[in-house]
Amino acid sequence: MTSVDLNSDLGEGFGNWSLGDDEALLGVVTSANVACGYHAGDASTMRRVVDQAVENGVAIGAQVAYNDLAGFGRRFIDIDPRELTDDIVYQIGALDGFARAAGSKVAYVKPHGALYNAIVHHEEQADAVIAAVMHYDRGLPVLGLPGSAWLRKAEMAGLTTVYEAFADRAYTPQGTLVSRREPGSVLHDSEEIARRCVAMAHGEPITDVEGNSLTLEPDSICVHGDTQGAVEIAQAVHGALKGAGVTVAPFAET
Amino acid sequence: MTSVDLNSDLGEGFGNWSLGDDEALLGVVTSANVACGYHAGDASTMRRVVDQAVENGVAIGAQVAYNDLAGFGRRFIDIDPRELTDDIVYQIGALDGFARAAGSKVAYVKPHGALYNAIVHHEEQADAVIAAVMHYDRGLPVLGLPGSAWLRKAEMAGLTTVYEAFADRAYTPQGTLVSRREPGSVLHDSEEIARRCVAMAHGEPITDVEGNSLTLEPDSICVHGDTQGAVEIAQAVHGALKGAGVTVAPFAET
Amino acid sequence: MTSVDLNSDLGEGFGNWSLGDDEALLGVVTSANVACGYHAGDASTMRRVVDQAVENGVAIGAQVAYNDLAGFGRRFIDIDPRELTDDIVYQIGALDGFARAAGSKVAYVKPHGALYNAIVHHEEQADAVIAAVMHYDRGLPVLGLPGSAWLRKAEMAGLTTVYEAFADRAYTPQGTLVSRREPGSVLHDSEEIARRCVAMAHGEPITDVEGNSLTLEPDSICVHGDTQGAVEIAQAVHGALKGAGVTVAPFAET
Amino acid sequence: MTSVDLNSDLGEGFGNWSLGDDEALLGVVTSANVACGYHAGDASTMRRVVDQAVENGVAIGAQVAYNDLAGFGRRFIDIDPRELTDDIVYQIGALDGFARAAGSKVAYVKPHGALYNAIVHHEEQADAVIAAVMHYDRGLPVLGLPGSAWLRKAEMAGLTTVYEAFADRAYTPQGTLVSRREPGSVLHDSEEIARRCVAMAHGEPITDVEGNSLTLEPDSICVHGDTQGAVEIAQAVHGALKGAGVTVAPFAET
Repeated sequence: MTSVDLNSDLGEGFGNWSLGDDEALLGVVTSANVACGYHAGDASTMRRVVDQAVENGVAIGAQVAYNDLAGFGRRFIDIDPRELTDDIVYQIGALDGFARAAGSKVAYVKPHGALYNAIVHHEEQADAVIAAVMHYDRGLPVLGLPGSAWLRKAEMAGLTTVYEAFADRAYTPQGTLVSRREPGSVLHDSEEIARRCVAMAHGEPITDVEGNSLTLEPDSICVHGDTQGAVEIAQAVHGALKGAGVTVAPFAET
Repeated sequence: MTSVDLNSDLGEGFGNWSLGDDEALLGVVTSANVACGYHAGDASTMRRVVDQAVENGVAIGAQVAYNDLAGFGRRFIDIDPRELTDDIVYQIGALDGFARAAGSKVAYVKPHGALYNAIVHHEEQADAVIAAVMHYDRGLPVLGLPGSAWLRKAEMAGLTTVYEAFADRAYTPQGTLVSRREPGSVLHDSEEIARRCVAMAHGEPITDVEGNSLTLEPDSICVHGDTQGAVEIAQAVHGALKGAGVTVAPFAET
Repeated sequence: MTSVDLNSDLGEGFGNWSLGDDEALLGVVTSANVACGYHAGDASTMRRVVDQAVENGVAIGAQVAYNDLAGFGRRFIDIDPRELTDDIVYQIGALDGFARAAGSKVAYVKPHGALYNAIVHHEEQADAVIAAVMHYDRGLPVLGLPGSAWLRKAEMAGLTTVYEAFADRAYTPQGTLVSRREPGSVLHDSEEIARRCVAMAHGEPITDVEGNSLTLEPDSICVHGDTQGAVEIAQAVHGALKGAGVTVAPFAET
Repeated sequence: MTSVDLNSDLGEGFGNWSLGDDEALLGVVTSANVACGYHAGDASTMRRVVDQAVENGVAIGAQVAYNDLAGFGRRFIDIDPRELTDDIVYQIGALDGFARAAGSKVAYVKPHGALYNAIVHHEEQADAVIAAVMHYDRGLPVLGLPGSAWLRKAEMAGLTTVYEAFADRAYTPQGTLVSRREPGSVLHDSEEIARRCVAMAHGEPITDVEGNSLTLEPDSICVHGDTQGAVEIAQAVHGALKGAGVTVAPFAET
């Protein structure tokens, strides 16, 4: 039976500030990429998201980032790789504290924002994040972009890699994302988004930005939680997948 | 055979700034209270101290604090107890990440600075720190001041409590510390300090600030790492203890 | 002719997080208490709010706070008064940089959150904030609660004090605010709120929480920007004041 | 009569951590590049350095940096130029608050660390820093590396530019600094350093790293404050300059 995971970035508020509807999304997704305090996420937010994830059977992922609260982790930082490794271990450990307190554990690692983008190509930083996962727990799957240095090197290092596709993003013929600066890069029609997700889950082609067929076979589909109507889109995707006979389930143990 | 632990605050640098001689002290003490990033300590410093502690057989303690880098954790903060609990879990978890990466684990918890002082009397904050330890791992011993609300309540909650004395501080007849603002509150003569530590370890009385006998029976003696001549004093204490037939060993598993 | 100022807390987002509708409120209020980066407010947010305040003829106030982004400045911090003075000078100066770049200047100082509440009674911290204003510019008016140590001591020090009332808060017979924990402490009916503001502006009594008459004669009325319907309430107040022949104008030069 | 300025990075401690001997260097240099809280420097440190600079007739410069306390401003950050401009205005303003409280004003701007290096070539970030100075005060001189995009563009924008040389660094034949990673990049012999500074001040050639003559004509010579023996080197330079009849004086008004 066909199965796919739905992941979303959660716990991205900080202190008095909130972002997105964590509670609603935790009723829809099967994997929660939880911010660990470096780009977003304070201790109490982490605890709340983790506790509810455990209640809902949602897998807990460490959404690791550069140390950049002011920039929300969206600015490339030319950090020494050894220090980056340490920063990643710190974040996974901190999140795992809440998972442990809730009787669970961190189930996977997904880099955030500028770090996610950097390690598509930046080999030293990709190695640094991989080293952190290896130091912490070689059994932790890592989530990322198919074709990235990050996943390619993680595979070579013996880590379990999980391929991610984006529910609401347009793709180039090469299977990379159309830049957010381009018109049409982000899809907004929840029905269309849901249809594409069903196709991806079945291993069937979707239409790329040039109108041709493109086959993505993701293990996990990312739905966004911080955009307008995010919850509705996530629900539409979840509903369409189930309606098409696709099991929506975490790729990782919960 | 008589045994006592020597603990010290370590890893209290941050980024480009260092404080004390971590490396030297890790050759002397048996328990390292490692700063966890809230009052001091960045990820790379934590990793270095943890790695060397593991090499040296030094127990790794989480030196948990208020979220106050600018104030070095020395300012009382009237934080909501539920948020304090979360902040403590975060810190223990983050440190445990490095301990885990080094094949070890956090072995105990010791509050720092203003938090240490607050929970001598502040019942809600004492409860909050205890709740964090209970959530994280009920097996973790907690280190503190005999007679404090913190240790009294921790005992009632079933935690293992460890009594601490200070090598270089004058005591009142009631067994509390003479305020740092008083003359004579801090001892500087390494021979005298070492003699007092030997007496404490043997359960023999020391002289209080008024010249009378006072018996402290600490499980662990705190030597400071950030004062002038700190390493020499710690070495003198360690040497005198061994010379007097006292085993210097961690109270916690390493 | 009767005149009153309307002030509101603005620029309280941070980085990727926003809070309240700064732009809309800057079309309604006459004084903007701009967060200065310590409890909220990043440099770009400060610049945007300041630029629009200048365009709209709104006075720019430094909303100074404890150094506590995680706690949004709502936790009392037992900071050394000398350091508090320095922290306040830093914040006023930083905001004044943007005011200067926009051809204007900081026009007054209003403490935020836990600091606002602390210096109602905490004499050393009140003195510390006053010292900061004196060091920076003795001509700067200070905004606060009538009867507070803060305003009483500021007056004695020769500063211009501005009395503040709250549009949407219930008052005790003594003229202090009913605690937010009490039922009925916050008013939500925009018509009632507007009526009370008109009465205050005319020096007429309002009804206190026990149903008796209470006369407040504020120089400035605070409307909140971060609650549900805040903009509508602020607009209703502004409209009612104008309708009742009250001039709504800054107390400070803009 | 020949005159040159001596500048040094000062106020680079933070909270409980200190770095270098500010007090001693303020007795030697004529321009203080004061850290503004982004890479180092807290409010109280800024106040102390500014107050003593004013007492000693030392010019106060804003040592502006990326927002990166953990990395001490030594990591390139790919920040949006508009946000960088705002961050620079914030820092200049904050420092100017202390200068104003001390009866003085910020006299110049010098970027720090990774920002200093970035804007040698990074045109957008160079423009962003220049824009900040233009917004704040077009009369402020800017200090930097001759030949950098930063100074070239600042000149074109009409700002006063000040050329800097480094007392203790080896130079390439092109007049750029030998990378710190190369052997011999940093000089340690205080007599040799002093001799080179005298030559520079007189417009005479020094010896570059390949043994050839190189003429630098700096307006200001940077002496470091955070290295071993820094104060002694700075004093040797100052003494040698005076001994050679060179006036050591700020380039900016104090």
